[in-house]
Amino acid sequence: MSQTQFYGTTTMPLTVRMRRSPFWERSHAAGAQGYITYNNMLIATGFHGPQEDYRHLKSAVQVWDVGVERQIEISGPDAGKLVQMSTPRDISRMGDDQCFYIPTVDGLGCMTNDPVLLRVEQDRYWVSIADSDQILFYKGVAAALQLRVSIHEPHVSPLAIQGPKADDLAARIWGDCVRDLRFFRWMHVDVNGQKMILARSGYSVQGGFELYFEGHEGAANLWDQLFEAGTDLDVRAGTPCQAERVEAGLLSYLSDITQDMTPFEAGLGAMCAMDKDVGCLGFAALKNKQSPNRQIRPIEIAGGPLPPQGTFWPVTAGGQTVGRVSSSCRAYDFDCNAGIALMNDSHWDPQTNVQVHTQDGPRDALVKEKFLGRTS
Amino acid sequence: MSQTQFYGTTTMPLTVRMRRSPFWERSHAAGAQGYITYNNMLIATGFHGPQEDYRHLKSAVQVWDVGVERQIEISGPDAGKLVQMSTPRDISRMGDDQCFYIPTVDGLGCMTNDPVLLRVEQDRYWVSIADSDQILFYKGVAAALQLRVSIHEPHVSPLAIQGPKADDLAARIWGDCVRDLRFFRWMHVDVNGQKMILARSGYSVQGGFELYFEGHEGAANLWDQLFEAGTDLDVRAGTPCQAERVEAGLLSYLSDITQDMTPFEAGLGAMCAMDKDVGCLGFAALKNKQSPNRQIRPIEIAGGPLPPQGTFWPVTAGGQTVGRVSSSCRAYDFDCNAGIALMNDSHWDPQTNVQVHTQDGPRDALVKEKFLGRTS
Repeated sequence: MSQTQFYGTTTMPLTVRMRRSPFWERSHAAGAQGYITYNNMLIATGFHGPQEDYRHLKSAVQVWDVGVERQIEISGPDAGKLVQMSTPRDISRMGDDQCFYIPTVDGLGCMTNDPVLLRVEQDRYWVSIADSDQILFYKGVAAALQLRVSIHEPHVSPLAIQGPKADDLAARIWGDCVRDLRFFRWMHVDVNGQKMILARSGYSVQGGFELYFEGHEGAANLWDQLFEAGTDLDVRAGTPCQAERVEAGLLSYLSDITQDMTPFEAGLGAMCAMDKDVGCLGFAALKNKQSPNRQIRPIEIAGGPLPPQGTFWPVTAGGQTVGRVSSSCRAYDFDCNAGIALMNDSHWDPQTNVQVHTQDGPRDALVKEKFLGRTS
Repeated sequence: MSQTQFYGTTTMPLTVRMRRSPFWERSHAAGAQGYITYNNMLIATGFHGPQEDYRHLKSAVQVWDVGVERQIEISGPDAGKLVQMSTPRDISRMGDDQCFYIPTVDGLGCMTNDPVLLRVEQDRYWVSIADSDQILFYKGVAAALQLRVSIHEPHVSPLAIQGPKADDLAARIWGDCVRDLRFFRWMHVDVNGQKMILARSGYSVQGGFELYFEGHEGAANLWDQLFEAGTDLDVRAGTPCQAERVEAGLLSYLSDITQDMTPFEAGLGAMCAMDKDVGCLGFAALKNKQSPNRQIRPIEIAGGPLPPQGTFWPVTAGGQTVGRVSSSCRAYDFDCNAGIALMNDSHWDPQTNVQVHTQDGPRDALVKEKFLGRTS
């Protein structure tokens, strides 16, 4: 049977299982062309076609319903201890206004999620998760050790404002102070009389913000405010852009990072405090896994636009499998195909020639040193 | 904005995030009309339209790719202890060949999943899960307490054979011995020279089996064997049938059972060993929650066929919200609409008149004593 069965699109009913954020109706009405589910919620796949969404994101400003970025709120005297148990990153180094990207791991040092951590106040944390029920890990540890914590998913629905004109748009709503906000730092802003967290963060490299919108009231109003204030900036509804994030090497948990990978394999070793045990339950296991024999690498795939990718694509050299491509795209601005690959150490050096096996046949490919459009 | 935005169908790309079982290509080629994701895998939504799939399931035999029912394998000296920590059901009462439905709970007694447990050999369990990362709960507890267990998701992809002619079909493959298999018991069968588990179970009330298919090799062959052997039985590809399971009251985790509900609220109190602490981490919390003030009830909704349900439907009486409908269907054989409702104690008695608010307007409805097509 042809492997072509594995790609394309399908029909999905919108069911009770698929939760929606308070921004969902506005975003949907703006013309979302399709959805996937993520953390049991709907997230749009695009609005005006892949290339136009990409061009627009890189030149103007978009508002994204990223309510799928659920928060796990952990509060109480043992909250910090519990969070630290889940990650090798030393959270004692996190500033009060900092957003801290934390690889989370199990007892074997394998990744369970890759959230962003915020300490919203003393002994109260938000773990802003990728697509897994990380809350069950925390609940398991807390119940086993009878920790003095409370754990729940609050009604928080992040709204992203992304693109080169994001500062202009945000400044029109919350004032010029937002321009001074540093990368991965947060501040409080007023949203219809309520104090909410605005962070300089987001799942693109075009710059912008994420508002941690609380509750349901006023969501549609805020959406409309943003679109009224941004008309001359060509503000549009958007969603994380596959081409933009893949060319830039923004990793996706369950695509690029899988549950069998360590932070070292994911290229996140610099985040791991390995000199001393800061309290991560996976520390002992990670100690022995600091020298991985496979790791994530940028890859450039030759030829014209790629077929849609529906499964991992094997990477071979001399007939041997030496890696897999987990994400791929047409990097329109660079007139090439970009991919994210998990490469064996034998073939992970920059400029190594390999082949990538798509469902439509093999392509020549080259391991790269850096992802596109990034300085580091 | 109209609530009609909340139902209907959408377009979903088939991506790397959506894993497929080894039966997926065969099932897809048989004409799956759409998919949802479940445990990060694809499961078909239907093949020949809701009514025809329902009629056929109740009169013939279907083969279902239910690879989304992932297994969590827990092995080692503390395996039984760890499983028991997750559930109030006393697993010491489970027979060696038994399939044990276990509500799993967190430290507050709220449901984290509703799996079926098998002890595949001494100190080795399979937890056959509904849609949540229950594995993270086990990993959290195991890491926190340094339990002597190994936890992983094995390559096991259940294949269901469901319908009144399921015995005939299974007997043609594995012999008449399968006819003697009792409900929720399992036996070993030979599949292309490999010993695998066949259970009398499945997510319908039409009778049948689930084969816990291991690995990938031979899956397509087995599928073809079943279809060749069952031609005169009118065997077809199928998938869990919403109308059949809703009218019969088979609950769905994340639809009917949500993470904020206790087993008592889900009507699973009889599964909970509350006389003594068998080792469940949620035992103390559950002790105080044995008398819920809301519980799942069958409901009959008046009028013609219902609109598709995309969100919970409020249930009211005298203008007050007294419950919610989480699943609904046309119960074709009974010429009525059936639903699964979570009802407040004030209105959960059989024959209570209420109103159900669909996106197309309110309907009269009646709380029922029993689900349809079931004797208990």
